[in-house]
Parts: sequence; structure tokens; C-alpha cells
Amino acid sequence: MISKNQIKHVQALHSKKNREHFGLFIVEGVKLVTEFIHNQYYEVKELFAVSDYIHQHKKTLDHCQIRYTEITVDELNKISLLTTPNQVLAVIKQIECSLDVSLLDTSTTLFLDDIRDPGNLGTIIRIADWFGIKQVICSPNCSELYNPKTLQATMGAILRVNIIALDFEQLWPNVKNKPIYGAILKGENIYTERLQNGLIVIGNEANGISESVMKYISHHITIPAANGNGSESLNAANACAIICSEFHRQLNYGYHS
Amino acid sequence: MISKNQIKHVQALHSKKNREHFGLFIVEGVKLVTEFIHNQYYEVKELFAVSDYIHQHKKTLDHCQIRYTEITVDELNKISLLTTPNQVLAVIKQIECSLDVSLLDTSTTLFLDDIRDPGNLGTIIRIADWFGIKQVICSPNCSELYNPKTLQATMGAILRVNIIALDFEQLWPNVKNKPIYGAILKGENIYTERLQNGLIVIGNEANGISESVMKYISHHITIPAANGNGSESLNAANACAIICSEFHRQLNYGYHS
Repeated sequence: MISKNQIKHVQALHSKKNREHFGLFIVEGVKLVTEFIHNQYYEVKELFAVSDYIHQHKKTLDHCQIRYTEITVDELNKISLLTTPNQVLAVIKQIECSLDVSLLDTSTTLFLDDIRDPGNLGTIIRIADWFGIKQVICSPNCSELYNPKTLQATMGAILRVNIIALDFEQLWPNVKNKPIYGAILKGENIYTERLQNGLIVIGNEANGISESVMKYISHHITIPAANGNGSESLNAANACAIICSEFHRQLNYGYHS
Repeated sequence: MISKNQIKHVQALHSKKNREHFGLFIVEGVKLVTEFIHNQYYEVKELFAVSDYIHQHKKTLDHCQIRYTEITVDELNKISLLTTPNQVLAVIKQIECSLDVSLLDTSTTLFLDDIRDPGNLGTIIRIADWFGIKQVICSPNCSELYNPKTLQATMGAILRVNIIALDFEQLWPNVKNKPIYGAILKGENIYTERLQNGLIVIGNEANGISESVMKYISHHITIPAANGNGSESLNAANACAIICSEFHRQLNYGYHS
């Protein structure tokens, strides 16, 4: 059974302010929680689950020394942020990743310039994971990584990608000798431009790449639209998906596929 | 000034049931509403706007014979579905598009097999528009086209793409001689497979392509993931973006680009 204080504490973590204050966050759902339990970097501080979950995962919980509390579905509803809570909720300690400079040489890297929508941030991390991009650098104004919507949208990719917060200015010394790609409306056609390993900058949903970052872009690229159709833009996450796909294609299957 | 009855009527259109009953829907925001006013297929039945909007668009409103009511910001807040209402809300008549068979020959076509998330549906229509896909066929279980979230996510692409609801069985006689592509986990690599004009089936967010449609797929394709990264899937809209991009690339810039 969960105490009133515990309920209060978990509910407090529904807000960003408290997540930052306590350095904790919430993860929900059987699949995602189980992935966090098995992950070596994240520490599960507390776990609340209905009896079904506990019976099915007792061995893992004991083996990983997870402190857990059995709760009712009603209690889960009280602490959950989901409209349809899914058996288990875990409170997890936030970690701070630091820049892995060696990854900048071996893998394409994303720099997210003020991606503000939590769903977009999460889904971009999921795209990065799919295409083997090992590091995603978020500008300080990006949406919060530990927002429940972001976490849900990553579908576990947060556990496989090194995600760090860094100003472009601070990153610059490490990338100044690499191609820095930025998608703009009138750049080189990504399908015919020969793409290389480097840094890809994804701009804000409404305003694109900020001025302070734009001056560092060495390669301006564009996803060409069909002619004369009147469409003006793609959603930031979709544009990111297309760009990462084309990098993946050229780097793994050859420019002339 | 807006009457109590008008407020009730617009609020009623917040629900799908009433939108279907009255054959009407709501569009909000300066840009989107103005696009609907200028569109030849959609009829704006009523328009509610703050004085700024009316002063700036008076000529257009009069020229297009739009029935409009000036309202206050408070009144707009009452009838709007947005957290930050944007000057104008229009009530528009739903239209029913029918299958344009000739487009099946000249343009790649999408078939959406139970896309349930309104945001995904809207963003997929936006992707289609970007890549010059002129027709999107939705299975009857897809999310509602006139859901405000869907409309918002299309960013106006709904005005440029022929969107129809049709069972695959009914579509079949018109596409049986064309390649029918379906994305599955273990199909041919989209980057190395030579893609042709045809029908692309996009499966449901959680369950992929349904069994009843799968049997019609003639070309099973896959977006190859990076090796051994543990990621299992992409969001349906992102997968659609990548697939449409690769079709666009091969069909417009050559298989060997």
C-alpha cells in the first residue's frame, strides 16, 4: 500500500519544477519501466506496481534490488499521468550525460536548436536511435528531456542515445573542423549533395535555426518539395527523419546506391 | 456580438458526433482560415473574428460573401478549442471527396490503414502534400479528418490533397495492376529496392498493416535500421516521411542519383 506522503511525492514529480528540484523523474508502463530497471546508468529509486506486475517481475525486482510497493489500480490512477495507466510507475534518478568527443568522429551527431515540443524531442531521439546516431545535443532551450511526453515518445531510445544539453558556442571547438549541416528552405538538394559524417542542426518548429547558430552552418541543405504544390514546410521531427534517412542511405549504401 | 445560441452551436462542433450530424467543422487561426476562405471547394458557413482580423480582411470577406460576426477576445475564448485562440474561427461545411482514378496513374498514392492518432493523420497529409502526392486514401477506421488536431497538423495541406475514405476491398479493382507497397519489419531495403509509382500502404501505429490489407501487398519494403541498436520501430508518421522521401528521390532524381 502506498502512503499519502508517497502519493504526494510522486504527484509532485508531475511538474517540471519539482523534477528539477529533486533530480527525479517518472517512467510508466511495463515495457519502458522494465527497460529502465535493466539499464546500467539509471537508478530506479522507487517502483509502484499492481500485483500482476509484481508477480510477473518478482525475480527481476529482487535481483536488481528494486524497492517496490504493491498498489491497487485506483492508487495507480492517482499517481499516474497516463489516461490509461499501465500496471507500473517508477521514480528514477536523473543523470547528466557529458559530451562524448570521440562519438563526434565516428557517428553522425544531431544538434537540436530549441526543439520546444516534448513529443517532437522524444520522437527525434527515437529517429536518432533507429539510424544509429549515438549522440544528440540539445540547446538549453529545448523541451525538458524528462517530461513524461518526451520519455513516452522516445519509446526507450533515451536509454541508447547519449543526450546532453550544451550551448552551440560550447560545442563549437569540438566540431569546427567537421561539416555542420543545417536545413534551410533554399539550400543544396539533400538527394544530390554528397553528404558526409558530421553535425546536423535541426531548427525550432516555428522559427527554424536561430541566428546565433546559423552563422556556424557550413553546409546549407534542403529537402526538395514537389514543384508548385504550395506546401511550405514539414514538421520538425518529420524533416529530421528524412534528413537522417538520407544521411544513413548515402553513408551506408553509397552516394550512388 | 455572438448570441448564446451561436456559442452553443459552435461549442457543439467541438465533438465528433455533432460535426458528423451537422456536416460541419471548425477551423481556427488567421492563416488556415484565410486559406479556407480562398479555397474553391470548401464553403465557409460562418466566421467569428476579433475586430483586428475583420478590419484587415474586410475586402476579402465582402468579396467572398462570407457571413461574419465581430466578437471579443473573451467570446473567442469561449468558442475556441485552442489554448491560445488566434483572432478568428470559421465554421465550414464538410465535403466528401471521391476517388480520382486518373491520379492513381500519375502520382504515388497513400493508403492509410487505421491511422488512429489525429496528429499523425494530419502530419501524414502534410508530408503527402510536400512530396506532391495528390491523393490519400483513409481506411474507414482512420482518425476523423475534421478533428481539430488533424486539421491543425495538416497546416493547410488538406486543401491541396484529395483525401477520401474507402475500404481496401473497394479500392482493389483500381490498383490491382499496380505495385502495392507495404512497410514491414523484414522486407526489401527501400534504399536498394527500385521503387516505382504505385500505392504505399501505411499501417496502424501499434499493429502495423492489418491482415485483411496485408494479403494485397505485392512489395514488402523496410527502412533498414542501424545494426544492433535495439530500436524496434519508428513512429508511423516518421516512417511515412522517410518512405515518401525515398520514393520522391528515386522517381525524381533517379535510382542512381
